[in-house]
Amino acid sequence: MDCSSIAIARSWVYRGPMSIVTGLKRLVVGRRLANAPAAPTLLPKRLALPRLASDALSSVAYAPDEILITLSLAGMTGYLFSWQIGLGVGIVLAVVVVSYRQTVRAYPDGGGDYQVASANLGKHAGLTVASALLVDYVLTVAVSVCAAVVHLKVLWPAAANHQILIAVTVIAILALVNLRGARGSAAWPTYVFVISVFTMLGIGLFRILVLGQELRSETAELTVIGPEGVDHAMGWVLVAVIARAFSSGCAALTGVEAVANGVPYFRPPKSRNAATVLAIVGVLAFAMLLGVVVLARLTGVHLIDELGGASYLAPDGSTSTVGAATVTGQLAQTVFGDWFLPGSYIVVGATLAILLMAANTGFTGFPTLASVLAKDGFLPRQLHTRGDRLAFSNGIVLLAGAAAVMVVAFEASVTALIQLYVVGVFIAFTLGQVGMVKHWGRALRSEQDRGGRRRMTRARVINIIGAVITGGVLVIVLISKFLHGAWIALLAMGLSYTLMVAIDRHYAQVRAELALDARQDRGLPSRVRAVILVQQLNLPTLKALNYAKASRATSLMAVAIAVDDEETRRLSQAWAKEDFGIPLRVIASPYREITQPFLKYVSELRTENPRDVVAVYIPDYVVGRWWESLLHNQTAALIRSRLHHMTGVMVISVPYQLSSSRRKEQRQARS
Amino acid sequence: MDCSSIAIARSWVYRGPMSIVTGLKRLVVGRRLANAPAAPTLLPKRLALPRLASDALSSVAYAPDEILITLSLAGMTGYLFSWQIGLGVGIVLAVVVVSYRQTVRAYPDGGGDYQVASANLGKHAGLTVASALLVDYVLTVAVSVCAAVVHLKVLWPAAANHQILIAVTVIAILALVNLRGARGSAAWPTYVFVISVFTMLGIGLFRILVLGQELRSETAELTVIGPEGVDHAMGWVLVAVIARAFSSGCAALTGVEAVANGVPYFRPPKSRNAATVLAIVGVLAFAMLLGVVVLARLTGVHLIDELGGASYLAPDGSTSTVGAATVTGQLAQTVFGDWFLPGSYIVVGATLAILLMAANTGFTGFPTLASVLAKDGFLPRQLHTRGDRLAFSNGIVLLAGAAAVMVVAFEASVTALIQLYVVGVFIAFTLGQVGMVKHWGRALRSEQDRGGRRRMTRARVINIIGAVITGGVLVIVLISKFLHGAWIALLAMGLSYTLMVAIDRHYAQVRAELALDARQDRGLPSRVRAVILVQQLNLPTLKALNYAKASRATSLMAVAIAVDDEETRRLSQAWAKEDFGIPLRVIASPYREITQPFLKYVSELRTENPRDVVAVYIPDYVVGRWWESLLHNQTAALIRSRLHHMTGVMVISVPYQLSSSRRKEQRQARS
Repeated sequence: MDCSSIAIARSWVYRGPMSIVTGLKRLVVGRRLANAPAAPTLLPKRLALPRLASDALSSVAYAPDEILITLSLAGMTGYLFSWQIGLGVGIVLAVVVVSYRQTVRAYPDGGGDYQVASANLGKHAGLTVASALLVDYVLTVAVSVCAAVVHLKVLWPAAANHQILIAVTVIAILALVNLRGARGSAAWPTYVFVISVFTMLGIGLFRILVLGQELRSETAELTVIGPEGVDHAMGWVLVAVIARAFSSGCAALTGVEAVANGVPYFRPPKSRNAATVLAIVGVLAFAMLLGVVVLARLTGVHLIDELGGASYLAPDGSTSTVGAATVTGQLAQTVFGDWFLPGSYIVVGATLAILLMAANTGFTGFPTLASVLAKDGFLPRQLHTRGDRLAFSNGIVLLAGAAAVMVVAFEASVTALIQLYVVGVFIAFTLGQVGMVKHWGRALRSEQDRGGRRRMTRARVINIIGAVITGGVLVIVLISKFLHGAWIALLAMGLSYTLMVAIDRHYAQVRAELALDARQDRGLPSRVRAVILVQQLNLPTLKALNYAKASRATSLMAVAIAVDDEETRRLSQAWAKEDFGIPLRVIASPYREITQPFLKYVSELRTENPRDVVAVYIPDYVVGRWWESLLHNQTAALIRSRLHHMTGVMVISVPYQLSSSRRKEQRQARS
Repeated sequence: MDCSSIAIARSWVYRGPMSIVTGLKRLVVGRRLANAPAAPTLLPKRLALPRLASDALSSVAYAPDEILITLSLAGMTGYLFSWQIGLGVGIVLAVVVVSYRQTVRAYPDGGGDYQVASANLGKHAGLTVASALLVDYVLTVAVSVCAAVVHLKVLWPAAANHQILIAVTVIAILALVNLRGARGSAAWPTYVFVISVFTMLGIGLFRILVLGQELRSETAELTVIGPEGVDHAMGWVLVAVIARAFSSGCAALTGVEAVANGVPYFRPPKSRNAATVLAIVGVLAFAMLLGVVVLARLTGVHLIDELGGASYLAPDGSTSTVGAATVTGQLAQTVFGDWFLPGSYIVVGATLAILLMAANTGFTGFPTLASVLAKDGFLPRQLHTRGDRLAFSNGIVLLAGAAAVMVVAFEASVTALIQLYVVGVFIAFTLGQVGMVKHWGRALRSEQDRGGRRRMTRARVINIIGAVITGGVLVIVLISKFLHGAWIALLAMGLSYTLMVAIDRHYAQVRAELALDARQDRGLPSRVRAVILVQQLNLPTLKALNYAKASRATSLMAVAIAVDDEETRRLSQAWAKEDFGIPLRVIASPYREITQPFLKYVSELRTENPRDVVAVYIPDYVVGRWWESLLHNQTAALIRSRLHHMTGVMVISVPYQLSSSRRKEQRQARS
């Protein structure tokens, strides 16, 4: 949800004897880019807005749908409340945007909710926010892609038969694009989307309100019956449905935090520019959401979910549970269909495009947050370093895998996924706002200037309102959605929270164990006994021998394991002929096994000379093609890893570059 | 298909920074066994027979079924030929057994077809046999497990709804059992199977032929209609169906070669004992096969495949394509059902058990053959070494994966899999026999003794007959099955053949490239410049510094990369305070990246001192739990692998054992 990926040149590097998986990866992802990482580009507002806001704005493509689908569970009565619910969501949106403008001003270096909660409420609040956001990034990808597929159905009805497959394929493509190093997303889909939606709303409202035309959507003639034949729900059932519809509609708020996280990528004055963009995004999202809900009401859009239990009742008395096109699709058809058909395709196409962009923001946001968490020691440290694109690759693969699992598990149903979605964002919102309240409280204690104090008090009031409202919405969301799926999201958050706490504790323990203090013995080992593992007498062995000699150890010994009598005899003869000046010791191996006898020899050498260090030289074959590494060095790797468990041993790899490796280096040097 | 696994103690070892996959593997497969490999146990005939022959004998459980199912494609006419086809298969079986008795006598050290073909017909014939056998091991597992599931359906009809899932689960369980180190298979299922089948055949034939009872199987009243309503096929259609039925019936011959491969595991006199067991297996298989086919004819068993196109016609005129129980199941029910029901369960249960044992032989045969191929340089060399159980693990996982793919692709249908199955075995049979013919020809040229020459000439005649018969069957199988699926098996064999040739060529090229000869420069590098990578100042770094000092290099330099200004400042101060006597060089890293700046430094050092070797010391954290290794050493591993591509650099790992690693070593030492 920020654009640090713009700055990252990803590359793939040789990582020792390679696994089949790595090989396949190389095959799919392509040759590594050898570029050095570049500094992040700072964005003017007109570029920052489309890149950071696609997630927030794209929710207009599914939030109204989810409101109407949920309301259909209460039969026709539900629809009476559609615009009030839209307005309610819009008010919460406004509160959140205003609150975030305070955050952006207070943290000009980029105040994600994670940083705000950590700094003000402590580690555990920060980790709670972080795990909520990690889970939500997964859901952002899953929901956005599934919503995109639903819009694809409007353009290409045959897609309905393969929704899951298409959604998973799209996720895979997004992952690949990001693995290969996406250069940031384009700005135009956001603008096309915003302009086309407003055009549609404007023309639609103009035709209805000014020209007095009667525009009827394709589902206007249908009435809606709730589950078990409910056509007008009353009392608690109605309240529960309205609460759920509101909760689902709150999906429109996801993505607002992305602008706050993106502050570092704005041109200075960063805070002011970010606050301005936030305000613009808020106004746009509010207007689009309410416009769509109102126009849907005016044109009589009725929407059901095929699996939700509600059904359509046609004027001829027949019923059907087959869903209709999306709200956007129906409105576009209604507004443009009778005079300018391409207009409706442009609206749907732009919606599809912005939904894919929104999914793509997950592929930036997730690895970036993971990198921040790794820097703070809550995730494996290798996820941190910026230039090491492996960090980002792992995050991308993890995110894509999790999103694909969600899509398959929930059969690409946006309505089902939405039940999991909003919880995480509102946990982050609430803790972020509470953190801001504390922040202002602390700031007020040290601020003397009267004007400053007034501004801070005002900001604190805004954030208090924000915290109360978002907290209240969180409670509504939890109650209305817990059993419908939110528990899954909470469980996933709990697991990632526990994992991060465990990793944090592990790093702390290791740090304590490895700390230098005065009591430790600083004595040097007295001598170095070099052992060279000889399997064949060839150039890599010769190189290892030469390097061992150059290192002037106290004693030098070449060791061969007699796996095959014939080979051993040949080796001994060749050794005698070459006259290296190093004795060759042949060790019997009754079970034709290399590792154990060699380890035993090294171990005995250690026991006999406890004050010395044993230096084991192992020739290493460096090859240029990934599959070649499957054919070499495996025994060496095994021995090396076993030696690591012995104290007083150091392991020396003497790499020998085979011609295929040298050719590869030359190719890369040229390119 | 032999029992070398009896001798193998599998263990799992630490292999450096571990992948998630490895971690999961450890979790599932369990803690490594630290035992040393033991010598193979030699088996008396009464144990060798059940262990080596389960594959050959178990085919009685599906070969008659496949004969009848194929014949059903010709309608009722087909069934007239059932016992002739059974007899034909039996005759081929006899020829193959007699031929193999010659092979076993000629190769007392274990003459698999691969060795025989390689030794007498050259590398390419050997590789052809090897790839045929590798593919056939996969199919042995797939076919045996699917046939077992079909028999499970007889005992537990609900299994029919989950055949694929059950088959894949069984394969996974077999793989796990073998990964954890199966201690050879039990002998009793084979004996129970043989005894129960003969009891069933004896009682059945006695009741019909002696007591004159009319035993009617459950499908006796049904007639069979071939595809497109054919109820009596004629002419070429009939010939084609008979040829296919014969080819499918030849599945009864698979597994005979396993006894020949198993010669090394017999007690001396190995050859004679193996030949005796071969004869016994041949007689048993022949009698059981023919007995089942004849009894099925007498009791009116009719069998169709649900997807094959044939259908049942009931006396009331209704038709059905729902298949019936297996031949063994129907016979057991017919013979025992009306007076001793447990008898029928024993037969079916024993059949199930021997089929699982047969599948299990694949899990021994495949890795063993792969190990032999690796020794000869046709597969990655690490598959060879006996004691290294990783070799066998990889083979087991590969086999299980391939078998599972086959099961899923062919929807656990034995009839579909059988189309692929027999080709490989008959390629191996034919080339093995041709190789034996050449062997005797060569032996005759040097043999002077008249008695010896007579024996050899006789053996050669037998092998010529064997070669002609098996070659003829191979042609029939290829013609009758090619389009029905055999092409897939041939394609797989072609791919593995190509792979092995490529690996062979690669190893030869590397050997040539690395060979020592007199022209090479033997000059020693003049000096060693040691560089110690310092990321933090802690005990592992101290250890690396001490080891570097003890190694008395020409120059010593500690290098830190300035990723974080604050950390770097603290490091420099601590360094100054400690007074190690080694300069610390801090290298700027504008993009907060460790690898590139460090590599650049080493590269410059190399350029400035082209005659010297650079020794890079890297502290390595050794941890005891698999997940801990995900949290450490990743940057070190990356740097190490990149350094391997530089000439004139050696990389020294200085392992520091964390307490979790020491505790693990102690646990293992105790256990």
